[in-house]
This record gives sequence, C-alpha cells and structure tokens, in this order.
Amino acid sequence: MSRKYNVAILGATGAVGTELLALLEERNFPLGKLKVLASERSAGKSVKFADEDLIIEAVTESSFDDVDIVLASAGGSISKKWLPIATKAGAVSIDNSSAFRMNPEVPLIVPEVNPEAAAKHKGIIANPNCTTILLSVAIYPLHQVQPIQRIVAATYQSASGAGARAMEEVKLQSQAILNGEPAIAEVLPYPLAFNLFPHNSPMTDNSYCEEEMKMVNETRKIFDDPEIRITATCVRVPVLRAHSEAINLEFAQPFSTDKAREILASASGVQLVEDFSKNYFPMPIEASGKDDVLVGRIRQDISHPNALELWLCGDQIRKGAALNAVQIAELLIAKSLL
Amino acid sequence: MSRKYNVAILGATGAVGTELLALLEERNFPLGKLKVLASERSAGKSVKFADEDLIIEAVTESSFDDVDIVLASAGGSISKKWLPIATKAGAVSIDNSSAFRMNPEVPLIVPEVNPEAAAKHKGIIANPNCTTILLSVAIYPLHQVQPIQRIVAATYQSASGAGARAMEEVKLQSQAILNGEPAIAEVLPYPLAFNLFPHNSPMTDNSYCEEEMKMVNETRKIFDDPEIRITATCVRVPVLRAHSEAINLEFAQPFSTDKAREILASASGVQLVEDFSKNYFPMPIEASGKDDVLVGRIRQDISHPNALELWLCGDQIRKGAALNAVQIAELLIAKSLL
Repeated sequence: MSRKYNVAILGATGAVGTELLALLEERNFPLGKLKVLASERSAGKSVKFADEDLIIEAVTESSFDDVDIVLASAGGSISKKWLPIATKAGAVSIDNSSAFRMNPEVPLIVPEVNPEAAAKHKGIIANPNCTTILLSVAIYPLHQVQPIQRIVAATYQSASGAGARAMEEVKLQSQAILNGEPAIAEVLPYPLAFNLFPHNSPMTDNSYCEEEMKMVNETRKIFDDPEIRITATCVRVPVLRAHSEAINLEFAQPFSTDKAREILASASGVQLVEDFSKNYFPMPIEASGKDDVLVGRIRQDISHPNALELWLCGDQIRKGAALNAVQIAELLIAKSLL
Repeated sequence: MSRKYNVAILGATGAVGTELLALLEERNFPLGKLKVLASERSAGKSVKFADEDLIIEAVTESSFDDVDIVLASAGGSISKKWLPIATKAGAVSIDNSSAFRMNPEVPLIVPEVNPEAAAKHKGIIANPNCTTILLSVAIYPLHQVQPIQRIVAATYQSASGAGARAMEEVKLQSQAILNGEPAIAEVLPYPLAFNLFPHNSPMTDNSYCEEEMKMVNETRKIFDDPEIRITATCVRVPVLRAHSEAINLEFAQPFSTDKAREILASASGVQLVEDFSKNYFPMPIEASGKDDVLVGRIRQDISHPNALELWLCGDQIRKGAALNAVQIAELLIAKSLL
C-alpha cells in the first residue's frame, strides 16, 4: 500500500477547497504530488498545506498530465470545461459541482450508500449536493431495511452553503444590526442576519428551486430508486456552518422507533444524538467540524401510522462536500478503480 | 358606539404586555380606564401608554371589580389563580397562557377562523399558541373549501417566542461570537446565536414537545375538527422576531395552486407575498410589526397528488399573541358578549 497518488485540486481557495486541503492532510491520504489549480486570475497566489505554501497554477491543457485524481470545486462551468480534458489525460475527477450529477454516464456517490456505483465511472464521479449527502447518510440505513416511500423535508441551511463570502456577509450584517445600522446584502439576495428566507437558487418550472430539486433527483439516483417520492422546502438560516433538516419518512408498513434507533446507532457515518429528557438533539454548532451526520429526535409520526420523524445536522462543507469527495477518492484507491 | 370599556392588563412588562399596550393605543380601542396589574414584585414600577406613565398595581382580590376585560399574559399559574377571581367580579378574561386552552368550557379563538365560539364563553377565552394562530389564519381559508386531512409542519421560531430576555440573550451571544468570545446561554438551554435547536418546551410521552402538541391539539380545537392529522417539528432559530413555518397540506382531492392563491389573496388576516422570479417570499424581517400573516411559495407537492406546500411568516408577538387577544376583545364588544 505504498503507492502514492498525485492529486490536483481545481478551485482551492473557496470554503470547500480549504477543507479539501485540511482533509488530505489530516486523513493521511496517500499523497504523491499535490497541485493546486485555478483560473489565471488566482494563479500565483498561495494556499497553505501542512507546513508548505503551495503556489496556485493557472489551469492549462497539460495541467492533468501527471495527475491521478482531480478534486474539483470551482463551479459547474469550470468543471464542464476542464474535467473532460482531465479524463483524456488519464485522471479521474471527483466533481463537487452540479454539472455532471444527473448525467447517466456519471456515478453520483455517497460512499456509505452506493460505493458499488464507483466501478462504472468513465473518468468523472459526481459528489452530490450537501443537503442530499447529509440526508442520504442518515436515512439510507432505514431504507435498506424497509424501503422509504415518501420524504417530506424542510431544511435549515447555513450561510456556508453559499460560500465563504456569504459567511462573512452574515457576520458583517449581524454586527451592523447590533450597532443599530442597516444590514447590507451583496452576496445573498436578502439580509440573512437575524432573518431567514427560502433558498435563493434559481426557480424551476414546477415552483421548486434548484436546491430542492437536487434533493429530489439526486436522492433517487444515489438510492437507485426512481419511485421514491420526495418533497422539500429549502431555507437559508443565519447559522454560519452546518445544515439541519427536519425529515418525515413514510414507509409501506410501520417502522418501530426502537428499531430505527438501533439501526442508526451502528450506521456508518451517523452519530445518534438524543436525550429527550434534556431536549438535547443535534445542533449545527455541534455538527460543525464533525465527520458524522448527527441524527436524533426519532419519533413515531402521530399523523401517520407508517411514518417516522427525525432531525439531523451535518457539516455542509465537510461531509456535505469536501469529506465526501475525499472518501470517494479513498474508495477509488481501495477498489483499484483509478 | 360611545361605550367605553375598562381594561386590565395582567402582566404588562413582558414582550406581549408591551405589545398589548401599543395595540390598544394604535387601534383606537374604546378604552375606559386602563389598569396594569402584576405581582407585588413589579408593583410601583411604571409602563408607558400613549403619553402617560401607568403605575403598575399589585393584583388583589378586588382588582377586577370595575374591569370589563382582562388581557392576561403573565403565565399559566398566575392566570389559573386570578382569572377565576376576575370572572366572579364580572370581567371577561382573554388569556394568553396555555392554562385554559384545552379546557372544554373555554373557547379557543382565532377571530378569522372561529369567531362564533366566543358566544359560548363563561368568563374566560383562551388565546392560542403563536405558531397555531399563524398556521390557522393561513390555512383555514383552504380548509373551508376542501377539508385538510393531514398537516406536516416544520417551524422556524424566533427568540421572541421565549420572551424579551431571550431576544436580548441572542443579541449578547451574537456580539460575543463576533468578538471571538464564548456565547453564554442562561435564558435558553443552549446558545441560539448562529445556531438553532429543536424547541425546548417540555417533552411529552409521545416524544413530541409541548410546543408541537399545542399545534396539534389547538388547531384541532380551533377548526372544530378532531379528525385532522397533524405532525410538527418545532425549532428555535436565531431570528429576533416573527416565526416562519414550512407547511405541507394533504387534501382528499387535488387542490389547484391557482385556486389556493386566489383564496389566500382575499383571505382576512393574510397577505400573499410571492415573486417566484426573484425568490421573493415571506421573511421574518418583513413580517415583524405587521398584522397580517405573510403567506407564499404555494406549490403543488410533487410527491403527492393531493398535497400543497406553502410557506408563512408572522409576527409572533403581534398576531401570534397580543393582536389576536385584542381582536378577541374587539369581537366581544362587536357581538355584545361582555
């Protein structure tokens, strides 16, 4: 197992890129050369990795010639342009954008759920949307025991989902409001400090926003179950990091809460957090920086004999993005799929 | 219509009491004498009303002798002790606590929904819980056209729901975090600034917290429909004022979104707020200080042919508490029920 892998990070300066660098270091990833790539605009700047300053290189046609794995988090248009070039150069790309997620040729993977799909890759693997990853990890162990028929989800999504600048904006807005000054919104469309609003991703024809349709379509693809019915209301809340989700799950038959709790207590990637006597359940401040999705408040739905309610929080940048991508890379290595 | 009514406010110093005073002034309530009552501890302090300073009197057995209407917002134990005494003295009490809400002898009223129930009062009328009032106003107009069979609700409840001290605590915590200092939680059980957590009301035997069971039981009583099935997840969010709710409504038959929109556009107490092209929907900062419940994001649920999704925000202190109580008082006057 002494083989080392050359990795390129495409888009290393954002919130996810920063987390990718941190994870490669802390997980003792079998790293050969590490290359950080970006547009001409960012070339020449540097990012920290371990004790080194890595100089960002402008991405070119030849950037991927000696690369085994590309971790892309620079947005859809950059992925669409450069990942096919990386594939031609023989690298395997793990893409954090939505560009390839619903492409039937591209596996969409949550390692705890559908690792077997990785074998079908043709050079690109898509990393799902953050809310979908967190949901999938939490509910797939139940789905395996008894198929979920319908999901009604409401999300509580932190500013980090809109990137590092949105996190900064919420802090600035909060300080302004505390000073009695107006909150200025430039990154997000409306002030988020001490406020919240339905997710601002583009609206689709059915009046669901794209973020909501990602939960619907990506969950179906990851579970390989086009029949599962899903509705979601995605909402941005003034939390800096980690998303929360209130989830109602309908099954064909009753699903005992004791059994659900037992399954989730031993599920990979899940940490059960619940003390009903203290109203102590998953909270974003406790999920931040954690690898596991925190799950709790498992209840028999009193409005439906076959439904369960549960509540989850997960670090959107970590398991919801960077960690899942690194885990896919580790999966490719473990299964010799590079 | 020149008759004036003597009003006593029991618990005038809290967030709801302050709003009650403001509403009595701005609505040109036909006010005779106004008396502000509290425990011995607060007696002698003063509160502002119009240009006057009203001195708070300690409540005694004879406090209600010349009172027509009592507006109580001093908590359940104080209501239980003093409102029967007010009834004996001939006053009608409108109680903002949960003490009498589920008492079959006590009407539970949202004036837009069940004003006729006021006629049955025996001296006490209960004002529903904030989340229930906001929900009722928004969905009852649809329920009248086609009965709702099931509601799946997730709430986003502001700090004001826990009182003025909780609002202050969130501000102090926010400033601490912005200064790089720890957030201290004394009023609420966990830090709420840049965080959120499932509602901290006491847990009931079915693993729903009391706040959630209020939505379930009070909505059934207000709608006079014990069959309606309701599940709720109540969550506190770092918003100062105004609650939001993501609501999934199931009917026996499809309910067209056009029809729902048309009904809500002309519904009393509702303001339709939606511009899908701009992701512009109800937001707590815009609901704060408003009388109407803001409703929008009306969508056909893609997971259920007979379900609609909608999103609402309403001022928890105003329509969710004080305004609803004053409207009940106005209803009693209009229908000569005092």
